[in-house]
Amino acid sequence: MKELFVKDLKKDMEIVDFFMVKSISVKTGSTGKPYLDVTLGDMTGEINGKKWDVGASDHLLKEKDIVKIIAVVTEFNSQLQLKIQRIRKAVPESNPDDVMDMKDFVKAAPEVPIAMYGYIMEVALNLKDEDLRRLCVKVLEDNREKLMYYPAASKNHHAELAGLLYHMKRMLMNGERVCEVYTNLNRDLVLAGVIMHDMQKIFEIDADTDGMASGYSFEGQLLGHIVMGVKYMDSLALELGFSQEKRIMMEHMILSHHYEPEYGSPKRPLFPEAEVLHYLDILDARMYDMEEALKITEPGGFSDRIWTLDNRRIYNPEK
Amino acid sequence: MKELFVKDLKKDMEIVDFFMVKSISVKTGSTGKPYLDVTLGDMTGEINGKKWDVGASDHLLKEKDIVKIIAVVTEFNSQLQLKIQRIRKAVPESNPDDVMDMKDFVKAAPEVPIAMYGYIMEVALNLKDEDLRRLCVKVLEDNREKLMYYPAASKNHHAELAGLLYHMKRMLMNGERVCEVYTNLNRDLVLAGVIMHDMQKIFEIDADTDGMASGYSFEGQLLGHIVMGVKYMDSLALELGFSQEKRIMMEHMILSHHYEPEYGSPKRPLFPEAEVLHYLDILDARMYDMEEALKITEPGGFSDRIWTLDNRRIYNPEK
Amino acid sequence: MKELFVKDLKKDMEIVDFFMVKSISVKTGSTGKPYLDVTLGDMTGEINGKKWDVGASDHLLKEKDIVKIIAVVTEFNSQLQLKIQRIRKAVPESNPDDVMDMKDFVKAAPEVPIAMYGYIMEVALNLKDEDLRRLCVKVLEDNREKLMYYPAASKNHHAELAGLLYHMKRMLMNGERVCEVYTNLNRDLVLAGVIMHDMQKIFEIDADTDGMASGYSFEGQLLGHIVMGVKYMDSLALELGFSQEKRIMMEHMILSHHYEPEYGSPKRPLFPEAEVLHYLDILDARMYDMEEALKITEPGGFSDRIWTLDNRRIYNPEK
Amino acid sequence: MKELFVKDLKKDMEIVDFFMVKSISVKTGSTGKPYLDVTLGDMTGEINGKKWDVGASDHLLKEKDIVKIIAVVTEFNSQLQLKIQRIRKAVPESNPDDVMDMKDFVKAAPEVPIAMYGYIMEVALNLKDEDLRRLCVKVLEDNREKLMYYPAASKNHHAELAGLLYHMKRMLMNGERVCEVYTNLNRDLVLAGVIMHDMQKIFEIDADTDGMASGYSFEGQLLGHIVMGVKYMDSLALELGFSQEKRIMMEHMILSHHYEPEYGSPKRPLFPEAEVLHYLDILDARMYDMEEALKITEPGGFSDRIWTLDNRRIYNPEK
Amino acid sequence: MKELFVKDLKKDMEIVDFFMVKSISVKTGSTGKPYLDVTLGDMTGEINGKKWDVGASDHLLKEKDIVKIIAVVTEFNSQLQLKIQRIRKAVPESNPDDVMDMKDFVKAAPEVPIAMYGYIMEVALNLKDEDLRRLCVKVLEDNREKLMYYPAASKNHHAELAGLLYHMKRMLMNGERVCEVYTNLNRDLVLAGVIMHDMQKIFEIDADTDGMASGYSFEGQLLGHIVMGVKYMDSLALELGFSQEKRIMMEHMILSHHYEPEYGSPKRPLFPEAEVLHYLDILDARMYDMEEALKITEPGGFSDRIWTLDNRRIYNPEK
Amino acid sequence: MKELFVKDLKKDMEIVDFFMVKSISVKTGSTGKPYLDVTLGDMTGEINGKKWDVGASDHLLKEKDIVKIIAVVTEFNSQLQLKIQRIRKAVPESNPDDVMDMKDFVKAAPEVPIAMYGYIMEVALNLKDEDLRRLCVKVLEDNREKLMYYPAASKNHHAELAGLLYHMKRMLMNGERVCEVYTNLNRDLVLAGVIMHDMQKIFEIDADTDGMASGYSFEGQLLGHIVMGVKYMDSLALELGFSQEKRIMMEHMILSHHYEPEYGSPKRPLFPEAEVLHYLDILDARMYDMEEALKITEPGGFSDRIWTLDNRRIYNPEK
Repeated sequence: MKELFVKDLKKDMEIVDFFMVKSISVKTGSTGKPYLDVTLGDMTGEINGKKWDVGASDHLLKEKDIVKIIAVVTEFNSQLQLKIQRIRKAVPESNPDDVMDMKDFVKAAPEVPIAMYGYIMEVALNLKDEDLRRLCVKVLEDNREKLMYYPAASKNHHAELAGLLYHMKRMLMNGERVCEVYTNLNRDLVLAGVIMHDMQKIFEIDADTDGMASGYSFEGQLLGHIVMGVKYMDSLALELGFSQEKRIMMEHMILSHHYEPEYGSPKRPLFPEAEVLHYLDILDARMYDMEEALKITEPGGFSDRIWTLDNRRIYNPEK
Repeated sequence: MKELFVKDLKKDMEIVDFFMVKSISVKTGSTGKPYLDVTLGDMTGEINGKKWDVGASDHLLKEKDIVKIIAVVTEFNSQLQLKIQRIRKAVPESNPDDVMDMKDFVKAAPEVPIAMYGYIMEVALNLKDEDLRRLCVKVLEDNREKLMYYPAASKNHHAELAGLLYHMKRMLMNGERVCEVYTNLNRDLVLAGVIMHDMQKIFEIDADTDGMASGYSFEGQLLGHIVMGVKYMDSLALELGFSQEKRIMMEHMILSHHYEPEYGSPKRPLFPEAEVLHYLDILDARMYDMEEALKITEPGGFSDRIWTLDNRRIYNPEK
Repeated sequence: MKELFVKDLKKDMEIVDFFMVKSISVKTGSTGKPYLDVTLGDMTGEINGKKWDVGASDHLLKEKDIVKIIAVVTEFNSQLQLKIQRIRKAVPESNPDDVMDMKDFVKAAPEVPIAMYGYIMEVALNLKDEDLRRLCVKVLEDNREKLMYYPAASKNHHAELAGLLYHMKRMLMNGERVCEVYTNLNRDLVLAGVIMHDMQKIFEIDADTDGMASGYSFEGQLLGHIVMGVKYMDSLALELGFSQEKRIMMEHMILSHHYEPEYGSPKRPLFPEAEVLHYLDILDARMYDMEEALKITEPGGFSDRIWTLDNRRIYNPEK
Repeated sequence: MKELFVKDLKKDMEIVDFFMVKSISVKTGSTGKPYLDVTLGDMTGEINGKKWDVGASDHLLKEKDIVKIIAVVTEFNSQLQLKIQRIRKAVPESNPDDVMDMKDFVKAAPEVPIAMYGYIMEVALNLKDEDLRRLCVKVLEDNREKLMYYPAASKNHHAELAGLLYHMKRMLMNGERVCEVYTNLNRDLVLAGVIMHDMQKIFEIDADTDGMASGYSFEGQLLGHIVMGVKYMDSLALELGFSQEKRIMMEHMILSHHYEPEYGSPKRPLFPEAEVLHYLDILDARMYDMEEALKITEPGGFSDRIWTLDNRRIYNPEK
Repeated sequence: MKELFVKDLKKDMEIVDFFMVKSISVKTGSTGKPYLDVTLGDMTGEINGKKWDVGASDHLLKEKDIVKIIAVVTEFNSQLQLKIQRIRKAVPESNPDDVMDMKDFVKAAPEVPIAMYGYIMEVALNLKDEDLRRLCVKVLEDNREKLMYYPAASKNHHAELAGLLYHMKRMLMNGERVCEVYTNLNRDLVLAGVIMHDMQKIFEIDADTDGMASGYSFEGQLLGHIVMGVKYMDSLALELGFSQEKRIMMEHMILSHHYEPEYGSPKRPLFPEAEVLHYLDILDARMYDMEEALKITEPGGFSDRIWTLDNRRIYNPEK
Repeated sequence: MKELFVKDLKKDMEIVDFFMVKSISVKTGSTGKPYLDVTLGDMTGEINGKKWDVGASDHLLKEKDIVKIIAVVTEFNSQLQLKIQRIRKAVPESNPDDVMDMKDFVKAAPEVPIAMYGYIMEVALNLKDEDLRRLCVKVLEDNREKLMYYPAASKNHHAELAGLLYHMKRMLMNGERVCEVYTNLNRDLVLAGVIMHDMQKIFEIDADTDGMASGYSFEGQLLGHIVMGVKYMDSLALELGFSQEKRIMMEHMILSHHYEPEYGSPKRPLFPEAEVLHYLDILDARMYDMEEALKITEPGGFSDRIWTLDNRRIYNPEK
């Protein structure tokens, strides 16, 4: 059983525990001698390690292997680093102590994917507008499998297992309230907009089933999820027989949800539901990033500068 | 009784009705002849009018008088304009037909001021943090009289009777939900921030008891309501014995709520509650401006360009 | 026969000639008297006129009527204006002198539409890549009718009859050369990009058969011709069986041809052919606007400030 | 006695001399062996050094210790570095050679603090406006102790012992002249503005008595010295019984002295004295940074890029 | 003798006095009747006037004529305007009352040109660097005649008779002080930079001997006074045998004195003397514009928005 | 004979071949031991190498030496690096195997300098305008020697032997076509503009005869090639007796060819020929940079981020 997590490591600790290999290679040191350079991780973070003499079996290790290590925590350039004495692959088949709960090794949204999916599907099923209801239900069903693990970003906010579902769910929760406060809003349009706005991230980002992104797809790089989303919406609207107005309004909501041209939206929101969609989106992203920053900041202290928050350093109150 | 409102006027209508004088002066025409130039209004908007021969009694009319007019609606430079044949002051004392409901003449928030005030006070009374509760209750009590009619702006969003209360109330409604969704938030801080953030608009803007602003105060122009709000918070925190941390965090929330330096916040929000405050504020302002724009836009059409919405033209769906 | 054109009018001229009504309405003067306010035009420009006493027949005039006027050229606010004494509709059926060549009244590209169309189709037919050839030929055929008259803009560059064809043709001429100079370019991609890049302006702009735009379509306002063009390309590529790479590259060329996010391209060009497409486009637009400006600028003088050229005043050499 | 200063070190020098420890730690090399990593400094600058075998006494060294070293100057990544053979703490109590003049080790303004303070107090005492005179005298007296050593910045311009006094004094010298040239200026307002504008840097920056800043205070980070200065001015004005106009004008001068919103001033200067204050401030900062840059630039050469001067490289003439 | 000045006119005054014709034309009113449209001015400002029946002699009036008028001050669009009853040219030859002091009619720097010139020449003659002394003396002598009346701008700051001399003189006064405060500065370079920096405004702007600019020269529009100044400096340096370093440093000072690329300086200042030159320049321009604004602002009030001051409204204290 | 080029090196290759020394120094390793740090290059690129034990003869090697090495290709920080076992200077005098073709070692334009020069001179000789013809011929003759090898930049586009000629030639090729398409252009002006626009790069950049820049000249840093080019044009125009208009138009073309103030042009193009010049320039620069990027990018992959292309990653199609 895993006992110690990356976020709890401190300088000079001597550790014997299991981690996942995030990246690994044999490098040549400044004196010409080879050494093993490996990044290890678990659900709480990542740490780099070095092993100064490379054994034959070390060459066989690869990304996503679960390994057991004996190491000391050192510090290099004010970052913690592992000086690894031994490393070996876990063999759960033959060694009961090596049987691991895989969830310990993967950063994941704090709620169960199927529950979040259920919440979102419930919202979809209760939309009053029949077109939008059919649209959302279909899209959720068609993409069910990938939604179960897809992150909402390759890094930054919601880059985690089922991060996209988590992002949608919390936006829906706020969106429902906003429609109660601003009663002139078309509730169905707001909620369908939330469900559709980032759906093509599934095809913009390349990710595997543990929710880790490895980069962007070819179409993602040349067009981006916003324009891909407009095209997707267009073909669905044709298929489902939307009116022209409803089709174009949904496409516009997707197109404008980043708000500023320099963030990828060539049109700014031109009706209140599109405006609301943007603010639900940005608020959720900011809350996520701030929560993450504060998780690793001492009470009464400031976080490091956070790039996605315009390099702000976030304050964690003493309480 | 008033029958016809500004928003319902159409070209070529012949009208006999009551309006409030918003501004009035005798001007000299291009041929050197004097004429009466008057802006009339009611709770739905304003319209300019001309009277081509000026009578002796016309010179006695002044701002805020309720007047009865006989006029024809014409068009000049694609704007409606009244060609006034007769105008006289209403005399409710002597003429029962001239007795008016003053609410018809003043743009006002759609809810009753005392009810909104009650809602907000209720929130304040239920804050768990004793310091913040005492702060909010005191501030609401101290400014009770002015809150009953103060607008939240001299023009643009919430420039109407009790607009500031309406702005606070709707922000609180959303704020409560946001604290349920993002459970790490300090609810008291968010809600106290909402109550305090614009309170000094009462001293930044010069307004009269019908909620109409006539301009900015001297201190408003040289310092602005944000910095005035920080000073106000500072003296209240000293008086109420806040801890340094609580005092400075509240001041920071006021200081940062416009988010961008170019909009008046020299510091960006540095903790999640300050971040949320900004988004509650901007969302409410945008919803207000869009609602106003759509009130006078035909279904299936676009509004005029709206300066406070970056010159966007807002779309009103056909339904 | 029309003898005098708008661009040749000078102050104090007394004129008797034919013009097209561009807009017309009866307005009320500052003294309350009605007058006729009419904008007249021909292929060289437009001029405003006033008729101070309105006759019964004046009410029957409407946009696009050809009218004969008797008038004096005056100046108002440093702009020429017509003081119209008489105005009547042309009756070519009954009056031989009223038979006009409609080309005199409509601003048009300087080349014959069918010839320009032929040039472009020739380019399309000679593309070596079979997919791109079929694409371009099909698109040119499908949109043949509208291309014969569509402008390339609602105002600014190429806002004229067949302006879109003219824009495409001159870009192709330069594009062919650029591919000779930079031999690594994929010539078919560049030329197909030119043909496709603005094709959806036909659906973004509302224009009539004399090439005059009356505004933007609903989809044009909410999505814009760039995103519409990507969707159009997508459906054509599916229909014609393009490879994924070729489809996405063509979509990217359309998406990125305005280059800067603030001009509507969420992605900048990511390969040389897309880069070239942008420069062919902008160069042609700039040359058009400068030529237009210099047409009405005296040798040795500067034009007025031109909005589409960043408010520059363009110099016309003395020669 | 200290003989050699950091700015005079050259590659390959063998040195035996005294320096102050600026930071020190024991690190682990790439081969796993510990070494001593120490930054040494004196009034002319700082240099990093390494000692490859760590002795027991090395662990006892700490920041601000004066140490004697034997070392060779080497070069690493085009920066000078010390290869330290021996290092020991100075013991002035027992070793006469170890008695040092502490001024050699601390970067300081080029004038004596008490003399600069005297100059500024003299200006304050001669203000004609009684309110402003009492304000400035009180503020100078109340903050006398800290002014003797406080820097004007944590890094960049005037980050040195008594740098704040030096900044104020030179601004006052120029300010007096400017008031002679622009005779409409209110001289008292300009000079009081100079004295007050940065006073809260004393509480924004955390610094010790040798003028070295260790960072920003909590209030400094959340509010900044400008807003803190406005609050400070406000309470002083109340205490001293200023008129509303005088109070607000002084607060505005502090608020606007950074001029641009993005540099921390939510309001731009709104009267000439506030405008002048800004230019006195920026000129003094720029002159300071350029002088510093040229001190370490060869005649006929360019300095490195200087971040506070928009990355310019400053030229030092050959003379 | 002139008794009433433009800045003292108030609504409803009846006036009989002399003014200078700034522009004049016969226009056609909205009813088709001609009227005289004339702008009149004196050293304190300008005002527009209308004369509703045009006499034969009115056609003979032209720019710069001194005229005597009988008129009433009216208000149109919240601007004062003259309703002129009679207007005639002054005939000082035959009518002693018509003999005017021309200084009353021309906006001029507040000091005598020859005295300012003398001050500047004195500075030039006392430069220690022989090259710079010869340069400045020569340039002042060569341009003596035009300097006596040239404005420093076509509008905005120092657009007045001898405004360029006034600008140079006040910059020199401050410059001398700055060199005393920052003793590392090369005083000769700073002062010669002041004298040379705007000298080519004499050829960039077209102005007549009363200091009124009529526009920009051809070279002024295509190159601008900064680049023209660099060329001028270059030829003078060659003629006077400057070293390469001195020549290029002087050219750089001229080139960089507007500081920001968007204000015309392709290079930012790269040594302290060039930096100082910029701040002397901008400070003098700002002080001038603020003084002008406050001359026509009531104590306790704000000026109109001033374009050259980023649309700020400047406050005039109550005193 | 050289067999292996930098661009073809792969990890783990063992190589024995010739390279040019680009930079060389003896450094001290982290353990205090000296090693040889050398950058080697050829016409296809550069690579860093280390030699861990330094021999006596190694100290004699210097920049531009041709050396023969025995080495292994390793990887350090994801960059290839040579681990050099032996290195010696080539001695072509005594060793026939050491005779090298120098072209293998220098990055150069893909066409023969004299042929490009001939093309450009041909264009110059065929200009119809006698002044411009004499200008261009003279300038080409006067700078013939340097043009044969000068790069067009110190890094970025056309930083290679005869890069300036190559840049001019390709711009001329496109320029000729553009003048055929836009027939109102003054062809002589466009082509003379191309020839003159960057000519002063010869004096802005310090480069040696193999086309490698070592930095910028003093005048280059303080004025830049644009302003230097205007001065150069000015003196030539005086010498050749140009009309004022022609002189200033040519100077303006040089001045405005970077288009944006922030890229060094204080004036934007004010006539079509200047506008065209800019687009010919930028298109050629962009094509060059993209070609270079794609040379080292796999088909179907993206290049690294390229600074001169706004950090875009360029796509190389699969074909």
